[in-house]
Amino acid sequence: MIILGSTGSIGVNTLIVAEHYNITIEALVAGNNIDLLNQQIAVHQPKLVAIANEADRGRVNHPRVLCGAQGILEVIEHSQSRTVVNALVGYAGLAPTLKATSLGKKVALANKESLVVAGEFIDMSLITPIDSEHFGLWYLMNERPFSKLYITASGGAFRDWELDKMKDATFSDALKHPNWSMGNKITIDSATMTNKLFELLEAKWLFDTSNIDAVIEKRSVIHALVEFVDGSTTAHFAGVDMKLPIAFALKGEVTKEILPPTNLLGIGSLEFLPIESTRYPIWNIKEHILQNPHLGVVVNAANEVAIKAFQKEKCSFFGMSEMVLDAYKKFENVKANNIEEIIQIDREVRQYAESM
Amino acid sequence: MIILGSTGSIGVNTLIVAEHYNITIEALVAGNNIDLLNQQIAVHQPKLVAIANEADRGRVNHPRVLCGAQGILEVIEHSQSRTVVNALVGYAGLAPTLKATSLGKKVALANKESLVVAGEFIDMSLITPIDSEHFGLWYLMNERPFSKLYITASGGAFRDWELDKMKDATFSDALKHPNWSMGNKITIDSATMTNKLFELLEAKWLFDTSNIDAVIEKRSVIHALVEFVDGSTTAHFAGVDMKLPIAFALKGEVTKEILPPTNLLGIGSLEFLPIESTRYPIWNIKEHILQNPHLGVVVNAANEVAIKAFQKEKCSFFGMSEMVLDAYKKFENVKANNIEEIIQIDREVRQYAESM
Repeated sequence: MIILGSTGSIGVNTLIVAEHYNITIEALVAGNNIDLLNQQIAVHQPKLVAIANEADRGRVNHPRVLCGAQGILEVIEHSQSRTVVNALVGYAGLAPTLKATSLGKKVALANKESLVVAGEFIDMSLITPIDSEHFGLWYLMNERPFSKLYITASGGAFRDWELDKMKDATFSDALKHPNWSMGNKITIDSATMTNKLFELLEAKWLFDTSNIDAVIEKRSVIHALVEFVDGSTTAHFAGVDMKLPIAFALKGEVTKEILPPTNLLGIGSLEFLPIESTRYPIWNIKEHILQNPHLGVVVNAANEVAIKAFQKEKCSFFGMSEMVLDAYKKFENVKANNIEEIIQIDREVRQYAESM
Repeated sequence: MIILGSTGSIGVNTLIVAEHYNITIEALVAGNNIDLLNQQIAVHQPKLVAIANEADRGRVNHPRVLCGAQGILEVIEHSQSRTVVNALVGYAGLAPTLKATSLGKKVALANKESLVVAGEFIDMSLITPIDSEHFGLWYLMNERPFSKLYITASGGAFRDWELDKMKDATFSDALKHPNWSMGNKITIDSATMTNKLFELLEAKWLFDTSNIDAVIEKRSVIHALVEFVDGSTTAHFAGVDMKLPIAFALKGEVTKEILPPTNLLGIGSLEFLPIESTRYPIWNIKEHILQNPHLGVVVNAANEVAIKAFQKEKCSFFGMSEMVLDAYKKFENVKANNIEEIIQIDREVRQYAESM
């Protein structure tokens, strides 16, 4: 198995699950956390390693270290493994997903931007999502005819803030996720609800339906619900721990305990709340983009530019959504016919957003 | 199809579902509601009819009317139908279940006392439960390895009463179920939690496990939960309407809408609460009886006597549980080897309880 993004939280959990199941690690790909990478190399002894920056090469305790975006693609190309775990962050995860699927490898995919940007051009039969929500949906479906899918959102850092106060929210405010600790980008995407919009698009590609919605469930105990044709609705409860979807993504079937069960009497009160577009302006395009999922590339590119602008204090918290919605309006008639055109659109949207 | 108990709420709903699926009704069996029975006869034109009391025979608009417990068994014996819906109330439902299964007929079983009293001697391969909780469990299992089953309880009429006030509760107080309207016996059994104890015993026989528990969920939106070995828990949500489990019991598979889906945003807050044995003294024997499910016959017999005593104001609300727990203690070493011994034990327990 190959792990792209081995030092992030998905990568670390994937290595725990791999050890649990005695899965050999052929290659590790990491960014800047060379210390942790060296520890992982010592334990798992991969044949190949790739890192983000050439400058760090000397610090890596391995004889075969490749570098940069090209290095990642070479690792995938030179590997024998049938499975690639892609836990890279953002648009950078797309090219490795395409490379792996073009070689017929199975991709356990935590990089949601791959599907958001280019779902139409990815062989879905090779994709298994690593993600509580899509794992939950899959777990609940059991090949029964369903009428609607629901995923839940925590509501992010500002779910309980006064709207007026949100106007002045800072990058570090937005990083204070109420329920768990994740990487920076996904935490900001949670605060704006862009993360959930992306997950709806992922669900669209994975399960071939636009009948999907999200609701807020603040305790993050329920991750997904499926409404069936007969009138039943089922829900998936689990601890917030990625080892469960990772184990299923790697093994297909799991017959031993990966997590302790949810203590039902300890949950307290659960409630489903609507996602209001006053608090989460990105929600204004939800229905439109589910009908036009090829526009994911536009939202993603503008969003990545917006997050950087927000981090550098060049725009406000709501300024991010304004940038994304403006770009969405501007580019709403584009439609890529192939991956090259996706890359072209991505570039144009970024240029447009950066010029704003 | 034969319907035993056609004028009760399960019977009425079964006829609606039968019409929906165009299922022929061969026989109807009812108690005292002859007016409704006559309406049902006019619509469904059964070949056979049975009623509880000989005295009502003249009022029934049908040429072939059988009477009493023996009449029910004759109806089953003379019918061609492969399916019997048993929605009789209490111990009286046992003999028809045994008769039907001995003839190899499939029993869609709403009479939970059949399994509570004699589960050990019933061919479970012929039984499909009509019951939100067991239907929910079945719907959730999907042949995955589970570690524990949960059913929910509404908590009954006195769930929010002060304990002190419950001591003086009357029969009519106990009939005021907070969430729905059912027959008298099951409503009293809800107030004492005996109904839920019986459902745990049913689950034990149906799913061959003692790893079952119940929790209170006051909104009655979630009916069952399954805890799986991997650490996932799934829950079944549905409207409180028996047509859903009835449709599955009759058809096995359902691919059209039986109920409108649960409106998630309209539920309000959900919570799982423990069943306290101070409020529900019957809960003191839960673990013991799950390990000794053959004692169901004792609890059922004492409970039927106790309910009558409570109705006649011969004992208090908590007096019912005292009678049942006393009989349970007295008879805890009995164990029937066959149905005849079950009938004998049932008789002895009733005599003992009546003498109290």
